[in-house]
Amino acid sequence: MPGRFLVAEGIDGSGKSSQVERLGHWLPCSGLMPADAKLLVTREPGGTPLGEQLCPILLNSGLTLHSRTELLLFAADRAQHVETRIRPALREGHWVLSDRFSGSTVAYQGYGRGCDLELIHTLEQAATGGLTPDLTLWFDLPPQQARARKPPSQQDRFEGAGSDFTERVAHGFRKLAMERGWWRIPAGEPLAAVEAAVQAACRSTFVD
Amino acid sequence: MPGRFLVAEGIDGSGKSSQVERLGHWLPCSGLMPADAKLLVTREPGGTPLGEQLCPILLNSGLTLHSRTELLLFAADRAQHVETRIRPALREGHWVLSDRFSGSTVAYQGYGRGCDLELIHTLEQAATGGLTPDLTLWFDLPPQQARARKPPSQQDRFEGAGSDFTERVAHGFRKLAMERGWWRIPAGEPLAAVEAAVQAACRSTFVD
Repeated sequence: MPGRFLVAEGIDGSGKSSQVERLGHWLPCSGLMPADAKLLVTREPGGTPLGEQLCPILLNSGLTLHSRTELLLFAADRAQHVETRIRPALREGHWVLSDRFSGSTVAYQGYGRGCDLELIHTLEQAATGGLTPDLTLWFDLPPQQARARKPPSQQDRFEGAGSDFTERVAHGFRKLAMERGWWRIPAGEPLAAVEAAVQAACRSTFVD
Repeated sequence: MPGRFLVAEGIDGSGKSSQVERLGHWLPCSGLMPADAKLLVTREPGGTPLGEQLCPILLNSGLTLHSRTELLLFAADRAQHVETRIRPALREGHWVLSDRFSGSTVAYQGYGRGCDLELIHTLEQAATGGLTPDLTLWFDLPPQQARARKPPSQQDRFEGAGSDFTERVAHGFRKLAMERGWWRIPAGEPLAAVEAAVQAACRSTFVD
């Protein structure tokens, strides 16, 4: 039986990455995964040797990338991630948990930067080869709360793009969550409550 | 008046790059360009600061790239090249001469690697934003002659991909040349004859 594919999506500062780490510890002991399945915890951009080389290019605020360039680089990173890590693991029956996936491109480059959504969907198909997550956890947090969590000096290219940009991205995630049936995690709650919501989503999705 | 855009295409070893260099010296003195126009000589991949970072990734035989990854990286390199160097120069009335452009992707990734041609054409549109050359010089040389010019130790990822691959790429260039009306340069002739053919193509295209 092929493995399951879980994705965490949301704006920067939504607490997504620390919850991915916690979920990565909990899931293998949860009883939800078959005994012989392993869990691969990964992320975009950057989950492959290619991704590690692309990551500083994509997130380094110093290099000015045209919006279509940025879109194509993220798609290249994703194609490599899907074909060399995610699909091979799923094929072996392992489970995969990724911090961000193609929804982030629709939200950031589509809704945030205003890139053509039709082009983005074509590139999404090219990058994923049609792979879709079994469960997407959407970490929903108002942008002003997310901003308050991270000082400007620690911001990357996207976090430094201004509050209008983040508002558009957050709106994009909300729209996608509705259209694609993502699981909403109320990310403004205390840490333990967020963790409980994540575990409940997994139980509800994967208990037979 | 916007500038003119010239491109050199052909398989590796066809002598394209040294003719681009010669053309780069001749064109500004040829009387074909307006007196106040400059010539930008550039290349793909690699004609931008981003391209310089992508070039070793794309041509380094050590990193295994999935075919769709490769396609998307070349498209990203091209989008950046078009938007940050080629279009701004043309808009100023300058002329641009590029060693390779989007035809190379159709020939190498489409005909050579067997990537979906429809996807390639969609990506070509995304990468170029619809920009097409005013003159494409096609350096036509039989693959076995091209191979004889370069020892295996100096070959990059594509040159090392075997003679069947190069045959398919050469066939792709031939088909493109017919479909897109490229100017055929008989690249097996002595150097001076090739140079004369290149200059004749420019005169025929750009003399009023």
